[in-house]
Amino acid sequence: MRKKIFVLAILLLAVGFSLFAQEEYSLNDAMDMVWLFLGASLVFIMQAGFAMVETGLTRAKNATNIVMKNLMDFCFGAIVYWAIGWGFMYGSVGIDAAGEAIAGKFIGLSDFFKGIMDDPVYYRDWFFQVVFAATAATIVSGAMAERTQFKSYLIYTCFISAVIYPISGHWIWGGGWLADLGFHDFAGSTVVHSVGGWAALMGALVLGPRQGKYVKGADGAVSVKAFPGHNIPLAMLGVFLLWFGWYGFNGASTLSGTSPDIARVCVTTTLAASAGAIAALIFSWIWFKKPDASMTMNGALAGLVAITAPCGVVSPGAAIVIGLIGGVLVVLSVEFIDKVLKIDDPVGASSVHLTCGIWGTLAVGIWGNIEGTAVGLLHGGGFAQLGVQALGIVAVGAWAALTSLLLFLIIKVITGLRVSPKEELVGLDLSEHKAEAYTGFQIFSNM
Amino acid sequence: MRKKIFVLAILLLAVGFSLFAQEEYSLNDAMDMVWLFLGASLVFIMQAGFAMVETGLTRAKNATNIVMKNLMDFCFGAIVYWAIGWGFMYGSVGIDAAGEAIAGKFIGLSDFFKGIMDDPVYYRDWFFQVVFAATAATIVSGAMAERTQFKSYLIYTCFISAVIYPISGHWIWGGGWLADLGFHDFAGSTVVHSVGGWAALMGALVLGPRQGKYVKGADGAVSVKAFPGHNIPLAMLGVFLLWFGWYGFNGASTLSGTSPDIARVCVTTTLAASAGAIAALIFSWIWFKKPDASMTMNGALAGLVAITAPCGVVSPGAAIVIGLIGGVLVVLSVEFIDKVLKIDDPVGASSVHLTCGIWGTLAVGIWGNIEGTAVGLLHGGGFAQLGVQALGIVAVGAWAALTSLLLFLIIKVITGLRVSPKEELVGLDLSEHKAEAYTGFQIFSNM
Amino acid sequence: MRKKIFVLAILLLAVGFSLFAQEEYSLNDAMDMVWLFLGASLVFIMQAGFAMVETGLTRAKNATNIVMKNLMDFCFGAIVYWAIGWGFMYGSVGIDAAGEAIAGKFIGLSDFFKGIMDDPVYYRDWFFQVVFAATAATIVSGAMAERTQFKSYLIYTCFISAVIYPISGHWIWGGGWLADLGFHDFAGSTVVHSVGGWAALMGALVLGPRQGKYVKGADGAVSVKAFPGHNIPLAMLGVFLLWFGWYGFNGASTLSGTSPDIARVCVTTTLAASAGAIAALIFSWIWFKKPDASMTMNGALAGLVAITAPCGVVSPGAAIVIGLIGGVLVVLSVEFIDKVLKIDDPVGASSVHLTCGIWGTLAVGIWGNIEGTAVGLLHGGGFAQLGVQALGIVAVGAWAALTSLLLFLIIKVITGLRVSPKEELVGLDLSEHKAEAYTGFQIFSNM
Repeated sequence: MRKKIFVLAILLLAVGFSLFAQEEYSLNDAMDMVWLFLGASLVFIMQAGFAMVETGLTRAKNATNIVMKNLMDFCFGAIVYWAIGWGFMYGSVGIDAAGEAIAGKFIGLSDFFKGIMDDPVYYRDWFFQVVFAATAATIVSGAMAERTQFKSYLIYTCFISAVIYPISGHWIWGGGWLADLGFHDFAGSTVVHSVGGWAALMGALVLGPRQGKYVKGADGAVSVKAFPGHNIPLAMLGVFLLWFGWYGFNGASTLSGTSPDIARVCVTTTLAASAGAIAALIFSWIWFKKPDASMTMNGALAGLVAITAPCGVVSPGAAIVIGLIGGVLVVLSVEFIDKVLKIDDPVGASSVHLTCGIWGTLAVGIWGNIEGTAVGLLHGGGFAQLGVQALGIVAVGAWAALTSLLLFLIIKVITGLRVSPKEELVGLDLSEHKAEAYTGFQIFSNM
Repeated sequence: MRKKIFVLAILLLAVGFSLFAQEEYSLNDAMDMVWLFLGASLVFIMQAGFAMVETGLTRAKNATNIVMKNLMDFCFGAIVYWAIGWGFMYGSVGIDAAGEAIAGKFIGLSDFFKGIMDDPVYYRDWFFQVVFAATAATIVSGAMAERTQFKSYLIYTCFISAVIYPISGHWIWGGGWLADLGFHDFAGSTVVHSVGGWAALMGALVLGPRQGKYVKGADGAVSVKAFPGHNIPLAMLGVFLLWFGWYGFNGASTLSGTSPDIARVCVTTTLAASAGAIAALIFSWIWFKKPDASMTMNGALAGLVAITAPCGVVSPGAAIVIGLIGGVLVVLSVEFIDKVLKIDDPVGASSVHLTCGIWGTLAVGIWGNIEGTAVGLLHGGGFAQLGVQALGIVAVGAWAALTSLLLFLIIKVITGLRVSPKEELVGLDLSEHKAEAYTGFQIFSNM
Repeated sequence: MRKKIFVLAILLLAVGFSLFAQEEYSLNDAMDMVWLFLGASLVFIMQAGFAMVETGLTRAKNATNIVMKNLMDFCFGAIVYWAIGWGFMYGSVGIDAAGEAIAGKFIGLSDFFKGIMDDPVYYRDWFFQVVFAATAATIVSGAMAERTQFKSYLIYTCFISAVIYPISGHWIWGGGWLADLGFHDFAGSTVVHSVGGWAALMGALVLGPRQGKYVKGADGAVSVKAFPGHNIPLAMLGVFLLWFGWYGFNGASTLSGTSPDIARVCVTTTLAASAGAIAALIFSWIWFKKPDASMTMNGALAGLVAITAPCGVVSPGAAIVIGLIGGVLVVLSVEFIDKVLKIDDPVGASSVHLTCGIWGTLAVGIWGNIEGTAVGLLHGGGFAQLGVQALGIVAVGAWAALTSLLLFLIIKVITGLRVSPKEELVGLDLSEHKAEAYTGFQIFSNM
């Protein structure tokens, strides 16, 4: 009898310890909290990186306007993503018989204006997600630089953060139809970068090129003018800040501070970014006969965008190849969009984020090894994963391109999208914000 | 008999595991260590943020002087806060019968020049506290920009870090009389920002305005001149760095890496900062007919300062309202101090840190819910908490304003506070540091 | 009988819990992972710090070239450190009878091009180490600024990251002969900074001075010209970013997120950096009659370099003294190298990293207390540790100086090291990269 009591005591003790290990807020929870908090903070500083890259690669007369757009797209984006975007992306569409939330296939429809006081997991996840939403939005700023009305940009940014980004994001990260199909996008080559890249391309298309960008000569031939950036050290600082923040972007996308996958992510991210810069440097050096600074900087970013989807599922060697190809692609894409399509994207945002976002998403289907299963084509995984990746690229691309095109066209009709030619000539700092960015410096604004 | 031994064995096992859970340096301790270390590092980068904001919003001829002040107030501040300040803030005034340290009501009086080798908790806490002390000190730099003697600024900064900040800090965070009354200031709207803000206002008052700032016309009317900042992108970089660092400032003020409150803090901080920028943008747009960059940047900082006290005890919705009001207040305050009081605060430091520091401290009494108790007026908590918050604001304000006023007056008499009119005209970079900040650039120093 | 079963059950339970505590990937492992990841990310941002300091302290016409060197030495360095450097530094030279890897005394010879998929510890450690390797490489950039061919710099950087740095690093951190002797270099005053500093000095020596730096007058006397930096706020931003990143550099060199030593490291690092800046400020103020910005900035960095070796084994008081002496030394060293040796190191890199790297390494033997044993001379530890430290300094110095001297001489012969006098006059931005850094600004390139 008493012996049974001992057995019972031991069992209770064991159960007790198990419960202790799953207490309300365990050390594992704390690790996840700290990890996602710090990861999100790192992603936040990418806003500064975008601001510095974009202002550095454009002209001094528009510098205030660009950094104001970068600040305000985060600010408006955060409020609308809290009020509306989160609900579309991570809300549910009902409750099943067992009382569990049902994830919609195409959209979430709950948790708008979420104002509750005590839900650490919601708070934590919202903070981690809002910085990704803001990244998608701010990509567009550079492509529309130097000619967009400030107020129209603010209208656009509310819509992408509230509607466009969250809905396609729901398909992949919110438990929607692409997630069901096994589409893999670890940290957002498609979810974040392609969506931002499509909106960037559509924005630049609807706006039209900057004055003097494409000039038809007497012989009918169009000459393409380059407007060099006004502050390369600042742009380079931006590249370093983006790369730094990308460690949070990719690393913390493990979503768990106790995941050993963090380690691989940091290696693949570092190698791909390095390879991207090297490839762009060498390729532009051969092609243009000079080690071009802006191409090289975009090469580093190209490597980072490309490795964002596959960073958790490829080897270091594959990461280098992915980065190298990304670095070549971004140079080709910049030239193609500028010289062939004649769409004026002043900083190459669509090449970096759209072209390389697509490339990185496909790379999962080429070299991927997801949780022990070799899904990559080159590892004998066949075309299945590659097909799913391509389907996701097309579906998200169609959604993002069409909705952002429509949005820009509507804004163009209702409030106007572009400043007047005279305002553009003077520069947006004086015409929109009534103050120069570099008061006291002698600047040639016709540059 | 043997059965009793088994019972004993199980009990011993249980006790053993409990002890294991409270071992000398547990995983919980490690979490706190890592959390406070990274939080403090984030707060440290706010020094760069202040330096960039302050130099960007003032004139090119004083840029070296300002960044030198920002570097050296940290350096001198760190040494004196180690030698003296920590003891005033966190020292004890004796030992009680049980051998426990007694916290003084008004001042700490032990642990000066603490040189011991093995006290991880002291080391950790000192590192986390010194970056807060340095923040209070560096706020003043901007308000006194473009006309203060460098050596006098260094004298001031030693006193605020060694004496002024630690003593009122002791009242609230060191177990003093305001802590006893239940005054709530989570991360330092009053402890850090108001104290720095009062010193900034007193410094600007004692110094007097920059040459040409307030000019009396022939008709006796005083015209107020604005001196635009010389580098808006750099100022914006500073805002982003401050915001980034603020996640450490507010987040790590949980003081524990295993606290679930971290989550709420990051959400309220993000939303309040965003709302502050939006409110200042729209308010200045309506009032001044332009989306003003420097007002908007100050609006983001206003939201951050305002949410610093209540970030752990309010809901996301309240955080947005607190930020919106902060963003309006900062614009009103800048105009009031500049146009009505005619105190020349070149970067608006006193409006950001003092006005919004007061506002944020009061907000705890309006919307606060402290550990499950609704103390906020709007949540039915009555006026008790609001009264305590107001009392703390007045008491700390009286202390900080009077001591810093006295300090600046004494410095003025003994070493002089202000450079000569000629030195001011030439710029402090040449007159104080014998070198320009932007050698090689054509700059109009009369701007 | 049954009682024995209970005893057995309890024992099994105890064993089970022990195993649980040492499971495959424990919370302790997760702490180390997160700690090293975040530490490495902080060290990464030091690349931006170096870029800003170096470009800010040199002339506007070379700004693009400098930031491009800073980006590309990381990118090439990362790839070659993965392919080759890691194997030399942390590889083994065989397997002993028990199946354990044998560490070579002078070099590692395994783990080149490591491409495996599942080794979180390797991935984690590689990431943490690559940012240190990149720091050593990038130190050289500043000393060789304004006159080096871009392609030659890229060749150099591959060799230091693949061969020079890893081999001497192996002696100390890879289990080699200096580690066996008890040489103590916590975070790399010698391993990283002296090695970079020697290469910097040799590079500047082989290159020769910039045009117009040392001009022989009619009377045969040589006048030494100073070329002031073109952007002091940017340089100061770099100092803050370096200091910020140094918290990862020193703090995470505990290599464990559960080490209580993290706390002391952050205090000694903060105090030494502060003391270094104060000493350099006051010393240069007395000597040159002005509070010199570039000397003061170098003083902060001098304190950081000096405390890097001893940060984990000295008291706060000793840290202040180490920093103060470092701050004086850096001023003396800059003057000595510039005026006496007449080696043109535009940003003082060799003084900061070599002179203070040596000083910090010696400081371990003066004030060190390693794991409870007072090894420092001033603590009664005798000359033993000091002797080992000196031996390591000499050995690593001989290796780094000779190999880098040889490398630069070979590059000079084969591809040429220096640009043409005309290219130098025009500036490397236009001559090497075919674009100005500050398009649109009026700049006097003869400055």
